[in-house]
Amino acid sequence: MAKDKKMVTAITSMDEDFAQWYTDICKKAELVEYTSVKGCMVIRPYGYAIWENIQHILDGMFKATGHENVCMPMFIPESLLQKEKDHVEGFAPEVAWVTHGGSEKLEDRLCVRPTSETLFCEHYANIVHSYRDLPKLYNQWVSVVRWEKTTRPFLRSREFLWQEGHTIHATAQEAIEETERMLNVYADFCKDALAMPVVKGKKTESDKFAGAVSTYAIEALMHDGKALQAGTSHYFGDGFAKAFEIEYTDKDNKRVFPHQTSWGVTTRLIGAVIMTHGDDNGLVLPPAVAPIQVVIIPVAQHKEGVLEKAGELRDRLAAAGYRVKLDDSENSPGWKFAEYEMKGVPLRVEIGPRDIEEDQCVIASRWNGEKTFVPLAELETAVDQKLKEAHDGMYAKALENQEKRTYACTTVDEINKALEQGDGFIKAMWCGEEACEDSVKELTGVGSRCIPFEQEQISDKCVCCGRPAKCMVYWGKAY
Amino acid sequence: MAKDKKMVTAITSMDEDFAQWYTDICKKAELVEYTSVKGCMVIRPYGYAIWENIQHILDGMFKATGHENVCMPMFIPESLLQKEKDHVEGFAPEVAWVTHGGSEKLEDRLCVRPTSETLFCEHYANIVHSYRDLPKLYNQWVSVVRWEKTTRPFLRSREFLWQEGHTIHATAQEAIEETERMLNVYADFCKDALAMPVVKGKKTESDKFAGAVSTYAIEALMHDGKALQAGTSHYFGDGFAKAFEIEYTDKDNKRVFPHQTSWGVTTRLIGAVIMTHGDDNGLVLPPAVAPIQVVIIPVAQHKEGVLEKAGELRDRLAAAGYRVKLDDSENSPGWKFAEYEMKGVPLRVEIGPRDIEEDQCVIASRWNGEKTFVPLAELETAVDQKLKEAHDGMYAKALENQEKRTYACTTVDEINKALEQGDGFIKAMWCGEEACEDSVKELTGVGSRCIPFEQEQISDKCVCCGRPAKCMVYWGKAY
Repeated sequence: MAKDKKMVTAITSMDEDFAQWYTDICKKAELVEYTSVKGCMVIRPYGYAIWENIQHILDGMFKATGHENVCMPMFIPESLLQKEKDHVEGFAPEVAWVTHGGSEKLEDRLCVRPTSETLFCEHYANIVHSYRDLPKLYNQWVSVVRWEKTTRPFLRSREFLWQEGHTIHATAQEAIEETERMLNVYADFCKDALAMPVVKGKKTESDKFAGAVSTYAIEALMHDGKALQAGTSHYFGDGFAKAFEIEYTDKDNKRVFPHQTSWGVTTRLIGAVIMTHGDDNGLVLPPAVAPIQVVIIPVAQHKEGVLEKAGELRDRLAAAGYRVKLDDSENSPGWKFAEYEMKGVPLRVEIGPRDIEEDQCVIASRWNGEKTFVPLAELETAVDQKLKEAHDGMYAKALENQEKRTYACTTVDEINKALEQGDGFIKAMWCGEEACEDSVKELTGVGSRCIPFEQEQISDKCVCCGRPAKCMVYWGKAY
Repeated sequence: MAKDKKMVTAITSMDEDFAQWYTDICKKAELVEYTSVKGCMVIRPYGYAIWENIQHILDGMFKATGHENVCMPMFIPESLLQKEKDHVEGFAPEVAWVTHGGSEKLEDRLCVRPTSETLFCEHYANIVHSYRDLPKLYNQWVSVVRWEKTTRPFLRSREFLWQEGHTIHATAQEAIEETERMLNVYADFCKDALAMPVVKGKKTESDKFAGAVSTYAIEALMHDGKALQAGTSHYFGDGFAKAFEIEYTDKDNKRVFPHQTSWGVTTRLIGAVIMTHGDDNGLVLPPAVAPIQVVIIPVAQHKEGVLEKAGELRDRLAAAGYRVKLDDSENSPGWKFAEYEMKGVPLRVEIGPRDIEEDQCVIASRWNGEKTFVPLAELETAVDQKLKEAHDGMYAKALENQEKRTYACTTVDEINKALEQGDGFIKAMWCGEEACEDSVKELTGVGSRCIPFEQEQISDKCVCCGRPAKCMVYWGKAY
């Protein structure tokens, strides 16, 4: 029992120290391990399996919307990075520079890609000549490097895994539609796979991607009331095409510039899952991305027939298509309960001699702790139902938390008052001036997160200057 | 027709210039495109889809043998790389060095991983404490960088994609078994998925991986008679464990060093497929890894009912689980035939008005050019059979080529005489001395490829010095 207790109590409570709670889960659930490479981490098998599930689902959604995977080099020559002015200004200060290959000094140093617009543009210039070559709908699953000062597992690291979609279209209209389509794909994925509600909207001018005409984002609210940008989608217009001299011949035989987009999500989504669903017993994983959806724990496993029956249940659930694990190790059931709670496994099936006698088992749901006796004949049906309940329940709970922590405010004072209850989303009107955006941040600590697609008329005046408002903005403290 | 002809004739003949033929296929089949990053390439959608199929099959084989995927950082601090003496000597001369992060100069420069033994060792030291923690069976799918002087698409590039398996075991015996198991997995994969025969064997001392006790390899013979190392598996003993101070407590409570392995295959396998199966009309892909297994080409597609029927066939084959494409573009059938021949699609289904009348279609096999009329009712059965035939036929043809080009020799003169017929594998006895290995290379141009597991007693004397032979060696010119 001492062993069980150690595992359960070893994690800091969320209310006591949210940042430490987060780090404890990353380590105790065996998602990551630190390395001597500053700001970089090992993603361990359990953490990587979550990412593989995320990849698998998203990749299917990308392919269903007509995208193809490619692979660009990881290096960008400095001269290539410099071709688009805004882009290089945004990224050059935070890239890692390769200056030597072996013992030879490079003439044109290479940066490790922080993002790959420049490489895609060079490639487009080689392969796009006619309207028949358009659109190109590409994606790649790679890692990128940004030289961050302070880092935290999944949320901000010098190297992180992501996908970057890059597309090129004949018209602005098509490119804008693509930008919006992919933002919707991300929002649907967050809802349907991660049970995570997000706000969809447009970034303000000051918060755009370097080189973009407009940037769209999905924003989620974490347990601690801080906002997390969970995915972005950028519309580039023809700015990159002009800088990289990408032209095509249209149907009327005229030379015109095509229009581009890019969009990405990262391993940060794993951080979002931890901080949206986790609790003081550890991780709580949405069934769609859980490496193990059901863990079977035999009780009194040394007694005759117990392991055999547990094995049967495992085989039945595996045959029904669930990711299932039978833990027949020598650890105590209590130790195992705590371990799989820490790892956020959605369902635990307990089976012991008395259950076998009564032809039943116990199913415990991680997200709400509910335990149910289930006749063995109904195992698959019950597991299916409980997993659906878990997904829906987790989503509803997260949405409730988000709504509870979202405050409509009409003045700066109201914002500050609202924030006394704890961090959260602030909905407030804005005149569209950067000066007011800056003032709100200075006076309240919350920055603009996005201009949501779903607008509300909270008032007709800017929350800061009182002049006529142009739109409603979501504000928050950000990760 | 001019258009059709252009595509067909645009590729150099294999006999005329093998290297140019190879490069032509890489470009014309749209596998890769060059970039301004010297020695690095874009892997285009069609090339990357081949890699995704390779990954999918191999990943399943790795998981079936108990391996888990992880992800290590892409950077290795110089101080970490230096911990194992042989390893750093082997790799330091060919790594890319990151010296600056943003504008800040790094104290300990970082190399971009050329391979990740050092990172795995650091991680093992953190997580392996007791015999209960062993074995760890890990793999990662990443890219690595080696600063090569001369590069060629897939065969040798500064950055390439690969998987690197890394495992750590309680005993030498277990680690050696793992090394052999994974070599067998590679050989099975080459045979069953790539239709490519390989020779399994051990590398000589001079050809070992930097830091290994022994290196095993699979060697394949290309169309031009040159050998290609298609995969390697290394046994490390406890050398890395000692250098990195990885120790565990065994069952008797003693502190002991564990034993390690690593093993990898790369995008080079795509090059191997090109040079094993390709012909003067382009790529010929093994069905298991072909992005498109069946292409359906409507003939006289403007005539009533043709596209509709072609669509039906596509839907039927897709429902039966094949990767199928209907090309209903405006290109001529002849153009399409040439295009999918270039792309190596295993089967082409032709369907036109007369076929529809007679309730049949034509199936053409890429690998041998055979055309067969097939009743529409038997489409799925015929496709299944033709794909199996293609795989088996391609394997048999490649094996025949390998055998035809394999020469048993007992003297250096015999080797030189055999090579007058063209390059190939030389089977010859060896005394085990490096001096003789070097002499053979100097006198004949062929180097040792491996000491095959399947030994033959060609003579009892070393092919070079005439002293008693220790083993038979496969020799060849290598890519």
